[in-house]
Amino acid sequence: MKQRPSVGLKKPPTGKWPSPDAGAAAEFARANTPSFVATLQRFVQIPSVSSDPKRAGEVAAAADFLAHQLRQAGLNRTRIFKTARHPIVYGEWLEAPGQPTILIYGHFDVQPAEPLNAWKFPPFAAQIQNGFIHGRGASDDKGQLLTHVFSMASCLKTTRRLPVNVKCLFEGEEEIGSLHLAPFIERNRHALRADAALMSDTRMLGPDQPALTYSLRGQLAMELAVAGPRHDLHSGNFGGAVHDPIQALCEMAARFHDANGRIAIPGFYDRVRALGPAEREYLARTGPSNEAILQEAATEVDWGEPNFSIYERVAARPSLAITGIRGGHGGEGPKGVIPCSAVAKISFRLVPDQRPEEIEQLVRDFIDRIAPRTVRVKLTTQISSCPALLARTHPAMTAAAKAYHSVFGKRPVWVRSGGSIPVVSHFQRLLGISTVLMGFASPGDSLYGPNERFSLKNFQRGILTSIAFLNEFGKSKTPRYDY
Amino acid sequence: MKQRPSVGLKKPPTGKWPSPDAGAAAEFARANTPSFVATLQRFVQIPSVSSDPKRAGEVAAAADFLAHQLRQAGLNRTRIFKTARHPIVYGEWLEAPGQPTILIYGHFDVQPAEPLNAWKFPPFAAQIQNGFIHGRGASDDKGQLLTHVFSMASCLKTTRRLPVNVKCLFEGEEEIGSLHLAPFIERNRHALRADAALMSDTRMLGPDQPALTYSLRGQLAMELAVAGPRHDLHSGNFGGAVHDPIQALCEMAARFHDANGRIAIPGFYDRVRALGPAEREYLARTGPSNEAILQEAATEVDWGEPNFSIYERVAARPSLAITGIRGGHGGEGPKGVIPCSAVAKISFRLVPDQRPEEIEQLVRDFIDRIAPRTVRVKLTTQISSCPALLARTHPAMTAAAKAYHSVFGKRPVWVRSGGSIPVVSHFQRLLGISTVLMGFASPGDSLYGPNERFSLKNFQRGILTSIAFLNEFGKSKTPRYDY
Repeated sequence: MKQRPSVGLKKPPTGKWPSPDAGAAAEFARANTPSFVATLQRFVQIPSVSSDPKRAGEVAAAADFLAHQLRQAGLNRTRIFKTARHPIVYGEWLEAPGQPTILIYGHFDVQPAEPLNAWKFPPFAAQIQNGFIHGRGASDDKGQLLTHVFSMASCLKTTRRLPVNVKCLFEGEEEIGSLHLAPFIERNRHALRADAALMSDTRMLGPDQPALTYSLRGQLAMELAVAGPRHDLHSGNFGGAVHDPIQALCEMAARFHDANGRIAIPGFYDRVRALGPAEREYLARTGPSNEAILQEAATEVDWGEPNFSIYERVAARPSLAITGIRGGHGGEGPKGVIPCSAVAKISFRLVPDQRPEEIEQLVRDFIDRIAPRTVRVKLTTQISSCPALLARTHPAMTAAAKAYHSVFGKRPVWVRSGGSIPVVSHFQRLLGISTVLMGFASPGDSLYGPNERFSLKNFQRGILTSIAFLNEFGKSKTPRYDY
Repeated sequence: MKQRPSVGLKKPPTGKWPSPDAGAAAEFARANTPSFVATLQRFVQIPSVSSDPKRAGEVAAAADFLAHQLRQAGLNRTRIFKTARHPIVYGEWLEAPGQPTILIYGHFDVQPAEPLNAWKFPPFAAQIQNGFIHGRGASDDKGQLLTHVFSMASCLKTTRRLPVNVKCLFEGEEEIGSLHLAPFIERNRHALRADAALMSDTRMLGPDQPALTYSLRGQLAMELAVAGPRHDLHSGNFGGAVHDPIQALCEMAARFHDANGRIAIPGFYDRVRALGPAEREYLARTGPSNEAILQEAATEVDWGEPNFSIYERVAARPSLAITGIRGGHGGEGPKGVIPCSAVAKISFRLVPDQRPEEIEQLVRDFIDRIAPRTVRVKLTTQISSCPALLARTHPAMTAAAKAYHSVFGKRPVWVRSGGSIPVVSHFQRLLGISTVLMGFASPGDSLYGPNERFSLKNFQRGILTSIAFLNEFGKSKTPRYDY
């Protein structure tokens, strides 16, 4: 039985459902979309900013909310696990013996919303306008995460079963480096065993062009603190006598890059895997143009390593940004002060086969070498995560490609992402499984920046794609782990 | 009649009073010190931070408080003049025909108190402990300013007259560059005519070693703003593609100085007046040692122009400090963001014969030349004031030296100050008069930094010195301006 679902989309999907069960679930999802959207709104309205200690209660509230949704969907053994900081939500449905097991991952914490005055709608109002839900976390990752919850709900409500076994693992620390997830996975290695992992926390190439991410950059985030005199000084009385910590910090920061925009830390590029000509050709043909990336970046001028396209620079080459700096008088007007300290936050994005712990040592050696003896310098590592390169031939990847095709009517493009999802390398390293990165966000959804949003059309298509994925993966000849 | 005042000081002054009137006023001052201290406490408790628009009402309250004190002291025609921002307080006593006229200047606004957590006592609590009053503005300039108010009060209460004519001019914008004082002086040139100006807003060499400042640095404070993409970007998605505004700002800031600590802006030193060997010898003999300055700066390591002592570097050589910097994520923890902008506050201290407007142009040319084309740069001038060099032979200077000697028992040392008091060059330029900088603050009183304080012993000695000054100046053969 084949059916073309009518899901209220202006342009209905051109693909076919993998099974009657999938068709029934899709029909249910279509009918219940208004309620799913209302739930997403309530989820986005929880300001679960994991980096802000004052918002810890909100992160916990988001965990409670999500656990409730899993129970409503019909999952079993839904539990909230405490960690030293933010909780982990787990739920499972394991009543498909002999079928493969998928580990669905997502995160319910969000980035800080600052600067608040740059938002068109309040960041936690979850305002709906022109087919978008606007708010911090709408696409990263609350909206995308919920596609799978509602996909399972739609399957379980219509047929009381899922085509595969499912384990759900949702964390509240993704935006601060997944601090406690790796130890949790390590402790629960047996319980979390699966044939593949699935997550939707990436972007498609455009609102109608699905994409499967096969490469992620790792991240090394550090804080560089410079201390000078033990208290702030009057710049009149002491200007010219002591090394201003802000100036010392700027002088060090200015040495991170050479004049060509290459990172000037000795040894930094040693392990960078070169792009082959075939992959460069594929990226050039299928990826965003220089112009498209600059338009999204809201700038006319690019900058960076010569001899690489912008797409290559952001997705297949490492980078370094100073993500924050502060020191001295931050208020209005002037103040004649030499501050006692200054601090910069620096963030490296790493590519295969760079190793974060090795890069960290190179950075420490470099700073040791360039730090002036007139100040005291301290480096603190805040995030350290590995880059990842995923096998495009895995049965779960194939299932995802088919699922996308059946809902969007287009085969997905293989993309490299410049972002970092530490859990992908955790899954590889600790569980030995590959991760399918099946995103539903689009360029323009402003992940991290102000005015983040998520298309309601793609929220619904995401739910349908997830239904199709579970059914395709259920039919696949994937090697099963031994229960 | 000669008398040695007994003013409750552990070590009484060794000098002699210039007149019986002075002795009587000194006796009154001694007896009323507890009440003067209580008034100073109430004055310090007003958080008159002129740079903070939210504190404008507090600056106005400080003006009201001060005007009330002038009336209480017995001055005539006390008035508060409004300006476009913070008010000016004026009062006078002109009933000594044929006697010289002194223009007493001070300021009732204060520096911001941040960082608040570095204060031992709350900055506006005016806590008294171990002979010091602790608080923002205690020495800069509320405590020093009040010495003259209470000196006049002591004279007028005891003898109903002053030995000279006095005009008082107190402003509320000294800490933000005396924005509206110069136009006010210009409009009131005739009314403000005097034979010399007097202010106490500088430091002595030590708590028992008076000092007369004959040189001040000028100031040029600018804000350097760098704008990049029109909104914040995800450092994963865009790291490597656009020039991070923080990085661009650091790269520019790193070029302000050469490797030797000299300012690298072409032409910057062209007009710097070289120190002669005699003055260098005097400064070396009488001024603070390198060790003493570093100790006060709470650091072990100096930095700056080679071939100059630290005292010369801070007082007779120009300097540049980055007094504040901010951009990107300023909160706790990491945030993967490339910010859309970054800003630095820079403060030049200028020496004779540098001209701030000329230096400003050199800075603009330099920034134009080094600014990368990948960002947009904007320079805003916030403070522009001239350096000053004062005649050590002026009768008012002589009177001040005698007054110090009679109260402290020591002749004052001639010092160069690294600070900037724009009004000194305004008085020179607009009124044609020299200024006596007769300070009572000490190293260690932490002007500008946290834990500012003022010695109550020197508060009282300041009142007595001011009484002695008025009497010495009254006896002087100073050329009088034509009434």
